[in-house]
Order: sequence, then C-alpha cells, then structure tokens
Amino acid sequence: MPVSYRKIQHFNECDNLFRTNFCLQVKASPGYPKRVLSGIQPTGSLHLGNYLGAIKKWVHLQDSGDEAFYSIADLHAITVPQDPRNLRTGILEMTASLLACGIDPEKCVLFQQSKVLYHTQLCWVLASFTTMAKLGQQAQLREKREILQELSTALYLYPVLQAADILLYKATHVPVGEDQISHLNLASFIARGFNKRFGDTFPIPHPFINEDSSRRLKSLRNPLSKMSKSDNDPRSRINLCDSPEEILLKCKKAVTDCSSAVEYDPEKRPGISNLLVIHSSLTGKTIDTICQEAAGMETGNYKITMATEIIEVLRPIRERFHELIKEPAYLEDVLETGASRASACARETWQEVSKRIGIDTSLRDERKKAFHSQN
Amino acid sequence: MPVSYRKIQHFNECDNLFRTNFCLQVKASPGYPKRVLSGIQPTGSLHLGNYLGAIKKWVHLQDSGDEAFYSIADLHAITVPQDPRNLRTGILEMTASLLACGIDPEKCVLFQQSKVLYHTQLCWVLASFTTMAKLGQQAQLREKREILQELSTALYLYPVLQAADILLYKATHVPVGEDQISHLNLASFIARGFNKRFGDTFPIPHPFINEDSSRRLKSLRNPLSKMSKSDNDPRSRINLCDSPEEILLKCKKAVTDCSSAVEYDPEKRPGISNLLVIHSSLTGKTIDTICQEAAGMETGNYKITMATEIIEVLRPIRERFHELIKEPAYLEDVLETGASRASACARETWQEVSKRIGIDTSLRDERKKAFHSQN
Repeated sequence: MPVSYRKIQHFNECDNLFRTNFCLQVKASPGYPKRVLSGIQPTGSLHLGNYLGAIKKWVHLQDSGDEAFYSIADLHAITVPQDPRNLRTGILEMTASLLACGIDPEKCVLFQQSKVLYHTQLCWVLASFTTMAKLGQQAQLREKREILQELSTALYLYPVLQAADILLYKATHVPVGEDQISHLNLASFIARGFNKRFGDTFPIPHPFINEDSSRRLKSLRNPLSKMSKSDNDPRSRINLCDSPEEILLKCKKAVTDCSSAVEYDPEKRPGISNLLVIHSSLTGKTIDTICQEAAGMETGNYKITMATEIIEVLRPIRERFHELIKEPAYLEDVLETGASRASACARETWQEVSKRIGIDTSLRDERKKAFHSQN
Repeated sequence: MPVSYRKIQHFNECDNLFRTNFCLQVKASPGYPKRVLSGIQPTGSLHLGNYLGAIKKWVHLQDSGDEAFYSIADLHAITVPQDPRNLRTGILEMTASLLACGIDPEKCVLFQQSKVLYHTQLCWVLASFTTMAKLGQQAQLREKREILQELSTALYLYPVLQAADILLYKATHVPVGEDQISHLNLASFIARGFNKRFGDTFPIPHPFINEDSSRRLKSLRNPLSKMSKSDNDPRSRINLCDSPEEILLKCKKAVTDCSSAVEYDPEKRPGISNLLVIHSSLTGKTIDTICQEAAGMETGNYKITMATEIIEVLRPIRERFHELIKEPAYLEDVLETGASRASACARETWQEVSKRIGIDTSLRDERKKAFHSQN
C-alpha cells in the first residue's frame, strides 16, 4: 500500500466524528437552548469503543430530555473511496445498530446527513469565509504537502462540512474525542467570524471533552493503540453484533503479557488492563470487584469468563440488530422521518443565513400575498 | 490595495461564467437531449459586453426551442466578499435586466443558483473525486502559492461548483469564453471519471467556443483590455440601463487615437475599431456601412452619432428594466417558478447520483407501499 494511501486511511480514521466520554459541565452560549449534535460514519460495524465512548452517551443524552441531533455522516464517508454497495448496506446497518443500542427516534432526531440538503449549502457559505491557509493549519492537514495533493478536495474541506453540521442545528454541545478538538475549534472560529460580520446567528459550540482518556478502549491486538474501525485486523475489536463464537475467540486471542495475574495496571500491563476496562464498562461492575472475583484465576480463564459476560450483555443489542436488519422498510421509514425533522430545523437556520449574507431576496409574506391577490 | 487582493479581484473578473459568442456546430453526447446551461453572477450591472457576448445568444437559444437553463450564480458570487445589501439588490436587478433583454421564463428556466439545493450537494460529491492536485492545475489557480493561501476555500473550489452546475442539468452545450475553457475541461474530466467508475450518468459537456474573439468588446478607456464589470473606471463600459446622458458622455470620453478618420483597423487603431464593433453589433449594420455613413465625419462627431443610435437601440431594454425593477414581487415570482422547475430537473440527477454512489438506500416504491399498508 503506498504511503500516501495509508496516510489517507489514517486521516479518515479520526472521523467517527465524535466518540468519547465527556463531562456535562460545559458552558453554553447564553440565549440558545441546549442542543446536542453528534455524528458517525456509516462505514464498518459499531464496535465496543464506539458504543462505550459515544453511543451509550448519545442514549443518555436523549433520555435526559436534551434536544439531540444524531447524524449518519455519509457525506463525510465519501471523502475517501467507498464501494457503493457497502455504503448502502452500511447506512442501513448503522441505523439498525444505533436503534439496537437504544437510540430512540421518538426522543432524538436520527437522520442521514445527505438527506438534509442544507449541510452542503451551509458548507459552501462557510467555505467562502475560510481561507485555504486557515484550513491548512488544521492539525490533521499539517502533514506533508505531497500527501495533501493526493487528497480529495472534499477530504480537505472535511472540517468545514463538520462546522456546517454543527452550526446548521445551532448546536451548543458537541461530544468530541481529543483528536477532534481542532475541528471543533475551527467551527467555533467560523461561528465567531460569521457572527461578527453578519450579526449574532450561531451559538459558539462547546466540546464535551473526554473525561477520562485512560479508559478509552484499546485494540485487542495492540493495547497501545486505540480500538478502531479502520484497523486492518478484525480481531482487534469486538463489534456489537459479533456472534458469541466470534466474541469468545477475540477475547481468547486478546494480546496480554506473560504474567498470569488479573490486575489493573495500565502503565505496566496495558493488555489485561484494557480487558478489565471493557469488562467493567460493559457490566457496570467496578474494576476492583472484577479483580476480586478473578482472584486466583489465570488470564486465560479470566478471558473466558469475561467473554461469557460480554456475550450476555451484548445479547439484546445483537438480537435486536438482527431483527431490525430484516426490516429495511422500517429503517427507511425511521431515516425518512428523521430527515424531515432535521430538515425543518436546518431550513430555518439556512433561511436566516441566506437573509444575512444577502442571497435571500424574498419579500415579507404580506407583500407577497398582496402581489398574488392582485394577479 | 494589497497585491493579493487585486489578484483575487482579477481571478473573480473571469467569472461572468460564460460570456462569449459561439458557434452552434458542436457535437453533443449521443443519447442525451440537447440542453444548454449558462450562468451569470448577480454582481454589477449588465454591460454591452455581457449583452452582446452572452445574453443575446441566451435569448437566441431559448427562442430556437432548445432546452435552456440560465442561472443567476449567487453561490459563485459569494466566493469573494460581497455586501449583503448590494447582493440582494444585485439578484433582483440581474433578474430584471435579463428579462428586459428578452429572456423569457416561459421559454427557458431562469433561476437563482442557491435556491436549487442540489448544486452544493453535487459539488461535494464531485469534490470527493477531485484531488487537490487536479484543482491546483487550473490555469487560474496556477499563480503563486502565497496568493492561494489567502483565497477563500470556496474560491479554490469554484471550478468544482461550476462542474456541478453543468452536470446537474446534464447540459450538453455550454457557452464559455476562452478564459473558461479550462474550467469546462475540468467538468468534462470529472464527468468522464464519474461515468467510468459508476456507469454512464453524465453527458460530456461541450463548449460553445467564442466564434470571433476579435469582436469581443473592449474597454472604452483602454481598448487593449476587455470590457469588464470589475474595471474600476465606470466609464470603461456602457451598462444596459445607463441613462442617455451617461451613454453620450461615455461615448464622447471613449479613448481613441489622434487620427480623426472613422475606419476599422483593430491592429493599428483599436479604439475607434472597438466603437465600430459596438455600433455594428448593436444596430446590425455592417462595419462597412457604418464607415460609409461616417465618411468625412471626424471621430468626435462620429461618437455623438454612434451614442445617439446606441441610446435608441437600448431604449426598450432600459425602459423595460425600469418598469420591472419597480415590481420586486413579480421578479420574486419569476425566480420562485424558475427554482421550482430547475429543482425538478436537478432532483432527478441527484437521485440518480445518490443511487450510483450508494447513499440512496431507498427501496422500490412498491416495497415501501407494502410496508406502509402493513403498518
């Protein structure tokens, strides 16, 4: 694989847009209602890292009564080559996965990004106010120029579309991973610049920063790197819909060290510590409790115990996913309703932006009615 | 004015998207109906160069029964800073000007670009298949890197949006000036690439090349440069809606040389030759006839004669413009109808593109109906 392509893969790896734990103590822009925006690309299967780092929090936020918009970010996905059939399947599978995890389209707005036509409209407007130099400062773009040249133009523009995603819904709270902070800063920079030039339009979005990055799930094959969709080795991650046999095998094959004691020491023993974090996060048991239960157990046996519990915890999600994926018409329906609700909100912002920048010529409704009654 | 800003101005100057004469003998993509697409930015007043180089041909094309889509390209206009009030007024004035010139919204589709939400959607998709390197090859972007850095990102993307403008309507025929050829080549390149990867979707758009560039109107203040909206000196151009007094003054002040004979010699006497071209193009009289009529006349007197005729030829356009501009509700209505018709066409292409690239998950209508009747 040529270096440049690997770089692109790496670049794209950072973009399950917002996956992380976060703290809720975030100051919001005064005068704007609290509104959460997050998104995930419809590529690959949801794995435990996505679930524990992001989706579980999405469910919590929707359940706590906050207004929440969750996007299946297909326009971001196509910034690197995608097979159309995989993408099509991926969109429905991501929808089914999110519903299976507890995302409730009655309580939040779950939508497919490309079905809301205002994301790219606002992206264009924001791109008009963003210099090439400013974009080039983005951490992920600061790498070698030659690589940039081989990037798709849309991949270069990625952070501007992300800013549009956020500002279109006037989102005040955006859960992001640390690797996305610079993108969120760009969104805030663009929002401030727009407000200054055209009058107060957008709240300044605030990130929910990762609360405890030491608890971020690591690869089962290399506990020093994070669990990621784009890792070439499928055994590096447990997907939410893996079969019990797959989960058992992946846990058994998880890389640990030569010591057999089950103990939490992320510095010296990252492999077993990662398994304990996964186990604890999924079951709700503390790491201490798990270590006590596993006292005297060898790592090999512990892996089986752990796998058995994970299989049980994931069972309802897995079963619900397999029911849902057989109902594409229902999934379609969910996405259609979501797009319609998201569009209604996005349209309002777009109309406001259009007026402010001068591309909306429309008269007041009364004058228009007067004209039509005359003619 | 800093150099970089002047460069931006220059860059933007090239973008009355398509203004030129053209020949009709252009091969079309087989299997696609002939369809014309052209656009103009809603900035500044229409001048004689626009009228004779583009708008008169637009009228001819609509009258000859070809399907024609004419866009008021506001999304292109905002790639450089615009005052919102001027832009708003500019959109209505451009609409009034085009109608006054004979553009008939019953015979063509006249629309405001930003009101058709699929331009930026398709632009994003095409940007996903266009590398930064390919865009950087564009003649107008090949200038110094430092200048590029200060450009808005949207200005960099300009040719991709232009490709989207064209391909969205499956336009087969695109009137362009010579300075736009490289943009049209990019559109053809993108169309070919898309067709190859996803199956035949877009006709390859063909330019209507400028038939006779020696007849392109020149500035009245400097007959070596072309007549342009962005010339700082308003006396360099005659606007369609200039008052008779303004036209007379501009003609009197037109730069000619020391010889007083009225004769056509664009090489040696570009100033008087430019006046003859304007005079001939507007009145339909041949240059020979005009020279015969002006035999023995001094340049100064000829300018007055010429001005008098131009004032008369432009009178109906000017008067119609001033009637129309008093009816913003009518202009709005024209744009609304145009947007609705353009959207219907654009939506079809977008749906096709969505299916091909895999972001349309929708089931066949029958299956959807079956689902809804069950539930």
